[in-house]
Amino acid sequence: MIRIGIMGYGNLGRGIECAVKQNPDMELKAVFTRRAPESVQILTPGVPVYSAQEAIKRKDEIDVLILCGGSATDLPEQTKEYAKYFTVVDSFDTHARIPEHFAKVDKAAAEGGNIAVISVGWDPGMFSLNRLYANAILPNGNDYTFWGKGVSQGHSDAIRRVAGVVDGKQYTIPVEKALEAVRNGENPQLSVRDKHTRECFVVPEEGADLAKIEEEIKTMPNYFSDYDTTVNFITQEELDRNHSGIPHGGFVIRSGKTGWNEENSHVIEYSLKLDSNPEFTAAVIVAYARAAYRMKAEGMTGCKTVFDIAPAYLSALSGEELRAKML
Amino acid sequence: MIRIGIMGYGNLGRGIECAVKQNPDMELKAVFTRRAPESVQILTPGVPVYSAQEAIKRKDEIDVLILCGGSATDLPEQTKEYAKYFTVVDSFDTHARIPEHFAKVDKAAAEGGNIAVISVGWDPGMFSLNRLYANAILPNGNDYTFWGKGVSQGHSDAIRRVAGVVDGKQYTIPVEKALEAVRNGENPQLSVRDKHTRECFVVPEEGADLAKIEEEIKTMPNYFSDYDTTVNFITQEELDRNHSGIPHGGFVIRSGKTGWNEENSHVIEYSLKLDSNPEFTAAVIVAYARAAYRMKAEGMTGCKTVFDIAPAYLSALSGEELRAKML
Repeated sequence: MIRIGIMGYGNLGRGIECAVKQNPDMELKAVFTRRAPESVQILTPGVPVYSAQEAIKRKDEIDVLILCGGSATDLPEQTKEYAKYFTVVDSFDTHARIPEHFAKVDKAAAEGGNIAVISVGWDPGMFSLNRLYANAILPNGNDYTFWGKGVSQGHSDAIRRVAGVVDGKQYTIPVEKALEAVRNGENPQLSVRDKHTRECFVVPEEGADLAKIEEEIKTMPNYFSDYDTTVNFITQEELDRNHSGIPHGGFVIRSGKTGWNEENSHVIEYSLKLDSNPEFTAAVIVAYARAAYRMKAEGMTGCKTVFDIAPAYLSALSGEELRAKML
Repeated sequence: MIRIGIMGYGNLGRGIECAVKQNPDMELKAVFTRRAPESVQILTPGVPVYSAQEAIKRKDEIDVLILCGGSATDLPEQTKEYAKYFTVVDSFDTHARIPEHFAKVDKAAAEGGNIAVISVGWDPGMFSLNRLYANAILPNGNDYTFWGKGVSQGHSDAIRRVAGVVDGKQYTIPVEKALEAVRNGENPQLSVRDKHTRECFVVPEEGADLAKIEEEIKTMPNYFSDYDTTVNFITQEELDRNHSGIPHGGFVIRSGKTGWNEENSHVIEYSLKLDSNPEFTAAVIVAYARAAYRMKAEGMTGCKTVFDIAPAYLSALSGEELRAKML
């Protein structure tokens, strides 16, 4: 049994707990939290919740510690710290800062004699893998990534900061016409506006100036001004009833040419349609926790990404079973 | 430069030649053929064509020998023989015989101190990879593979063996309704007939009994009797004009559940739309030739499949570049 520890019990931590339950070669050993441990109710009977400060002294009880903090402030500190003591997996998703994060974590994991897998999930993660495979196969081609339909936490937060707004949720939606052009191998040049639209569901304060709220959202730089944005005003009850989920997904498409005169076109498409963004991210992380456990058992150390890990490490099946059933 | 040799110059061999041209870190060093070498015209200026018998004595000129023979009789003999002398890649695609092929090739490659990558292409190959990744992520789910729209060589050959048929081509077509049900996460139980239809374009002999030909095709066991099959009679000229390509493709879809009570559904889909089946297969093989070359350079030996090879080995980019650009 692979003994899993969870550091941080929010949506992602709870997703990890659910994913561990589905994998018979794993058991949840402990949850660590920065909140008061007695205030945290988890789902798995009999599993202890400890203060985050206790983690390091319990390191021999845990095979893989899964770091479920945020990328802005938690993971840049946590991953490089815990990689000294544990085999760890994180979902660090600030694409631009991955090289820097990798370097620090690699040093810590090498010193600790551990494996640290960073930036696991679906983007970065499965989408990255599909970009790599498709680029290696079709060196002459174009990449397209579309996100959605799904909830963007950052954009929903931005809506809620607007004066007169009580609550709100934002969906990122890929533009069907752009998707079709890409799938047809037309290699379109697409602006930010061409690729995605943004749909907002907003609960206003009583008596708020709706036109002003709509204007402020639609013209917000970085978040909305470069997109075709729709603003729908609804009641809190409607928001809670119809928009409480955290769906997401998207498409990674590469079209490219082969042939002596590049006369043949090919389209490679990978897509995800997810009811729960954090639970799917957690499911990917748990598969990579298995890989990390095995790689460490084989004596490997250092920081790894999804690019560095042979697919067979992810599966509970043996090499023989995989070749017989899945190849 | 990775020096590539091609063993066997048919559609796949020619595809390898085209793919090597697109990869600046590779050069085509030699083509080996069982035909009279002087009768084989290749596309790349200045590259020699040798008799297959000369291959072993030229082993020091070649970094990776790509075996482009058929799975029925060529590869079961060739791969295990050449793996003693060369780093090799093959596209062995008889799924049921892969374990046996693996065992023999593994022994030969280990003895020779070489890497041998078998069963590379898109199915087996990229489709297998996507089955593995999706199964590891969603242990509770269902797999679906659809093929097409594309030309099946085996079914086209079967048509041409029918009395009164001069020429013919068969397309395998996924049933859109079944695809949609799978994409919607309905987890349908699908029979052979539910998943694919077969469309035949047949050139009859002059004065042939068309009704008899149609009946014979539609009732042919294994090939057509389990499917809804359409037979279209056309002229040789029409066949040559409209059906001379070798397109193919397909879909690998896994739908699965997550959550404490499995309350959330997810759909992972990978699809290919290929103008040229052999050229795309060749493009995948050439990326794995790069991986094989690097793994051998690192001192690894033995038989590998796509499951055993970390994705980063496929790309001409360095780890730093991959993390900065594709993660």
